[in-house]
This record gives sequence, C-alpha cells and structure tokens, in this order.
Amino acid sequence: MSYELHYWPGIPGRGEFVRLALEAAGAPYIDVARESVTRGRGLPAMMQLLQDRQARHPPLAPPFLKDGDFVIAQTSAILQYLAPTLKLVGRNEQSRSWTLQIQLTIADMVSEAHDTHHPVGVGLHYEEQLPEALRRATGFCRERLPKYLHWFEHIVAHNPAGPRHLVAGKLSYADLSLFQLIEGLRYAFPRATAQVLAGTPHIVALHERVSELPRVAAYLASPRRLGFNEQGIFRRYPELDIV
Amino acid sequence: MSYELHYWPGIPGRGEFVRLALEAAGAPYIDVARESVTRGRGLPAMMQLLQDRQARHPPLAPPFLKDGDFVIAQTSAILQYLAPTLKLVGRNEQSRSWTLQIQLTIADMVSEAHDTHHPVGVGLHYEEQLPEALRRATGFCRERLPKYLHWFEHIVAHNPAGPRHLVAGKLSYADLSLFQLIEGLRYAFPRATAQVLAGTPHIVALHERVSELPRVAAYLASPRRLGFNEQGIFRRYPELDIV
Repeated sequence: MSYELHYWPGIPGRGEFVRLALEAAGAPYIDVARESVTRGRGLPAMMQLLQDRQARHPPLAPPFLKDGDFVIAQTSAILQYLAPTLKLVGRNEQSRSWTLQIQLTIADMVSEAHDTHHPVGVGLHYEEQLPEALRRATGFCRERLPKYLHWFEHIVAHNPAGPRHLVAGKLSYADLSLFQLIEGLRYAFPRATAQVLAGTPHIVALHERVSELPRVAAYLASPRRLGFNEQGIFRRYPELDIV
Repeated sequence: MSYELHYWPGIPGRGEFVRLALEAAGAPYIDVARESVTRGRGLPAMMQLLQDRQARHPPLAPPFLKDGDFVIAQTSAILQYLAPTLKLVGRNEQSRSWTLQIQLTIADMVSEAHDTHHPVGVGLHYEEQLPEALRRATGFCRERLPKYLHWFEHIVAHNPAGPRHLVAGKLSYADLSLFQLIEGLRYAFPRATAQVLAGTPHIVALHERVSELPRVAAYLASPRRLGFNEQGIFRRYPELDIV
C-alpha cells in the first residue's frame, strides 16, 4: 500500500524533507494535494483531513502522512516514524535519538531561515515587516548561519565511521535533510551561504554525494521536484542576503 | 547510575521539560549546572562539555543529557530517548510517534511564546524591539494561543481511552509537557490564557491532575523547582498580554 503525503502544493517547504526520504528509499507514495481533484485528491482532500472534527490524531498543520489508518504530522516525527521501515536510520535507540537530534537542529535552522522574512508575524506580508526583516536577517547571516553550519561540519568531520555521513557509515534521513537545508540556504542567501560553505568542505561534499544517489538524482531531474519560490520558507530576497 | 541534566541555571526554560520527566518518574539525576563549582560541577562543567572540540555528539545548545557516555540534546529528542526507560510513553511505534508529534507541537508553541518578546533577534534586548514585540504578541494572543490550545483540547477530548491523558490511558511525557506549557502561558499571558482556557475544560483538568501526582507535587513544592522570570522563555510583560 502507498503512503499518502499531504502538503501544500506549489512549495517544497517542510513537506520536501518527507518527500526526499520517500524518494531516496524508493517507497510508493501519493502526493495527495498535488494530484487531480477529479480523482478525489488534490487540495480539497488534504483540507478535508485537516478540518475533520472527529479525527483522533488531527494534524495541526501540514505536512502529514497517512499510513493506512495511522496519521502522523510534524516533519521530524514523520521521519522518525518512517525511517526504520525505509532503512534510513540505524537500529539501536542511541542511533535513532542522535539522528533525531540532528533533524531537530535542521528544523530549528529552517524555522530561523523562515523568520528572516516574517519576524513580526506569519499573518502579515513580507512588505509589512521589511525593516524588521533586515535586522533579523543580519543576525541570521552573520551569527546563526555560521554557527549551525560549523556544527554540522563538526559532526561530519568527527563521525567515527568517517565523513561520508552524519550518522555512522550509512545514509540516514538526516543526510537527506541536510542536503535540502543547504539547497534552501543557497537559494535564499547565496552570498552569505557561499562564504560559510567555503570553510565547511565536509558538508559540501556530503551535499554533492546525496545529489548523486541514483534515486535522488532521478527525483531531482523529475517534475515531482518543486523549485523554491517566494511563497515558501526559503525566499530569495537579495536585500536579506547579508555578508 | 544517575543521569546528568545540563541546562542554564536560574531559568526553567526548555530544561524544565526534561527535569519534569525525570522527577515524575523518580529517576536519579544530577542537575549539573545548578550544583556547586567546588565539586567539579556548576556552570563551568556544562560549558566545558558544550565547548569540547573533540566531542562526537556535541550539543549545539542546552538542554542536554548525559547517560553514561551517551550525550543527547534537543528537548524532544531527549524525551523520546528517555521515555521508554522512564515508562513515560507507550510501547508501540505509533504510540511513540504520536507522543513525539504532540511534544513537537508543544515545542513549536514554546518557541512562538519566546518570539513574542524577541521577534527581531535573540542578540538584541527586549527593549530594543518593543514595537515589534507588541505586533507579534497581538498575533500570538489572538490567533496562535487559541489555535494551539483548542488543538490540545480536541485530542484530549477525542482520546479513545478517555480524557484523562493525551495519549492512551497512561501518563506520558506529553502530559507533563502540556502541564508546563500551561504553567508558562498562565505566567506570561495571564489574561489571554484565562480567556482561552475558559473554553478548554479537559486540558485545565489534565493540568490539575498532573500537578497532583505525588512525585510531581513533591517536586513542585521543593527548592528544585525554579520559578519563571524575565530571563527565560515565558516572561511577564503585561503589555504583551493582549486580550
């Protein structure tokens, strides 16, 4: 049976972290909200689940995943749930927890990248909070970006199994998520990101290797892969790319 | 052997979610940064671990937990790691994932509560971002606070095992965390929170029950329990308590 992935169509957003794991594992899935409404799918199908007043495990927000009758939301919880079946995490508890820790750190950085263009509130437009966005982006590009990326570099460089992966000697969902994080940062903050990545060769090489995995490469070249745009989390506003 | 909990002394912050789980389970632990420097503990011991350039699993930030040689950070990952041993989560994968999903939603709300007083950047003081804080707090109190609390109310009310717990018929770390979230919201936004809680009787009752658990009640009455203050995540700035 196919998994059902539910996420906003039109942006990669947080859904892309789940999509990448499913694609890299070759798992069958239906990208519900991007399918045709005439087949009973599309955005209305997602909204119906989101607004189901009788649901036992209602998602507060997309992305969420349906696995038979089981519904699970929150990107990191979805990945933690899927990973053993998709063979994208080690078997023991410590390995699973360490992978989750890395994923949650990636999620924190994603949220901070989002907040550069929406510091005052998600209910307001970017144009209504431009001076605040500039102040927030300054701190993000000058302090947070180097702090996070050097941390990822450190753990790859200190991996006892070698620097090919974040955790042990095997691909995990954290590698896929780090790939996507770097993609987003390069899109949104090309100059600031390039400056930091010049000093973090291990994660640059890891990003490159992930993009060359056969299933990932095929996915990236397919129409299933969505590009970044100015409706999503990572937005290219040149004034926020502060070096 | 005792667990070692490492977190900033003087604020409950995110460390309190881990501390509550350890206390509720009666697990032995050392609250490292709050102990005496003369015994080789205290803040310097925490900073030494944070700044260890050779660490395999360095934490990016507190809280982090040491279990023998294993170091784990990120509040939700720590709880996910500890919970089976502390018997604060169900045994099957779906139950663990659903509990994690709730915890991550609590963590999102904690971050949003923090951002009301620091919308523009954590590197700046509250007084440097007061107009932005007022705008952000308006959205938080009027939209986010009801949205989140009604979601928790829904899942307690729709728990097939009854409304005594968030997950199944047994105390989980999510119940403890929801207790702490409500404590923080009542401290920081007393009027806005009271208004919403008037319509969410199940989570009010759950909060009350958690506070009366014998180990939790003993902990709350002890000097180990830290009060909220204006250095932490939940701060009482009356101008941000918008109804």
